[in-house]
Amino acid sequence: MTPTQPHTVVSSQSLLDHWQGHRRLTRRVIEAFPEDQLFSFTVGSMRPFPEMVKEFLKMTEPIAHGVATGKWKEFGGDLESVRTKAELLRLWDEATEKLNAIWPTIPEHRFAQVDKAFGQWVNSGINTILYGIDNEIHHRGQGYVYLRALKIEPPPFWER
Amino acid sequence: MTPTQPHTVVSSQSLLDHWQGHRRLTRRVIEAFPEDQLFSFTVGSMRPFPEMVKEFLKMTEPIAHGVATGKWKEFGGDLESVRTKAELLRLWDEATEKLNAIWPTIPEHRFAQVDKAFGQWVNSGINTILYGIDNEIHHRGQGYVYLRALKIEPPPFWER
Repeated sequence: MTPTQPHTVVSSQSLLDHWQGHRRLTRRVIEAFPEDQLFSFTVGSMRPFPEMVKEFLKMTEPIAHGVATGKWKEFGGDLESVRTKAELLRLWDEATEKLNAIWPTIPEHRFAQVDKAFGQWVNSGINTILYGIDNEIHHRGQGYVYLRALKIEPPPFWER
Repeated sequence: MTPTQPHTVVSSQSLLDHWQGHRRLTRRVIEAFPEDQLFSFTVGSMRPFPEMVKEFLKMTEPIAHGVATGKWKEFGGDLESVRTKAELLRLWDEATEKLNAIWPTIPEHRFAQVDKAFGQWVNSGINTILYGIDNEIHHRGQGYVYLRALKIEPPPFWER
C-alpha cells in the first residue's frame, strides 16, 4: 500500500469566489440597516455593526497582501472618519477590487507556508485566509441578530 | 502560454480538521449557556440556540453521508425529545464520531460532482459541505449574541 495524494477539494479560484460571495452578502447586510441605526444600534453591549465591518476591512485586503507577499501591513484607508453607510460601502467596494487584483498574485506555495500574520499570528496562509472569512461569517451573523431585533428581515443567508 | 493547473489550497483532510475545529467551538458555546436559559432565551423573536444546534445536526452527518454515497437521508436521531444540555451534547458527540467515520469514505470525485442535496439543493459536494460549515459559523455567531445579552463571556472565537 502506498499513501494516496491528499484529495483536492478547494482550489485557489474557488476559494476567492467563495469569499467574494460572502462579501456580497455582507454588503447586503450593511445596506439593510437604516442609516440612523447603523452606527448606533447594539445588543448586549456589543459593538455596532460598522465596527465589525471595519474589522473585516482590516483583515481582507491586508491578509491577501500578506499571504501574497509575506509583508504584513495595516489597512491603508481611513476608517476612523467613516460616519455614513455610503462611506462604508465605498471602502467595501474598494476592498472587493483590491482582493480580486491581489488574489491571482498569491504564489501557490504561500497557501501552505506558515507565516506570522501581522507579526503576531503564526499560521499557514490558507488558515489565515479561512480565519478572515470565518470571522466575517461569525460577526455578520451577529449583524443578523441586530437586524432581527430592529424588526428588519435580513437578506437570505444562501444568496451570495 | 498554457493554462496552469488550479492551485490546491484545501485538502479533504484539512477541511475535516477545519470543520471539527469549528464543531468543538460550537460545543463550547452550547456548554456556556446556563441550563435554565439554553432552551428558552432568545433575542428579536429568533429561535433559542438549541433549535440552531439541531439544524447543525440535521446537516452535518447527513451531508457527509450524502456527499459520500449520493444517498440523501434525514438525520436519524430523535431531536424532538431533546430537553437537556446533556442530551444535546450526547447527540453532538455522536455526530462528531460519525463525521470522522464517514469522511474518509468520500470518493475524491464527489467533492466536485454536482448533486441534488436532500433532493432539493443543486450544488457540488464541496459547496454543500461549505454551506453546512458556514451555516454553523453564522448561527453560532448568533448564539454569541445570546450569551452576551445574558452577560456571559462566550468562548474565544479563535480557539478550536
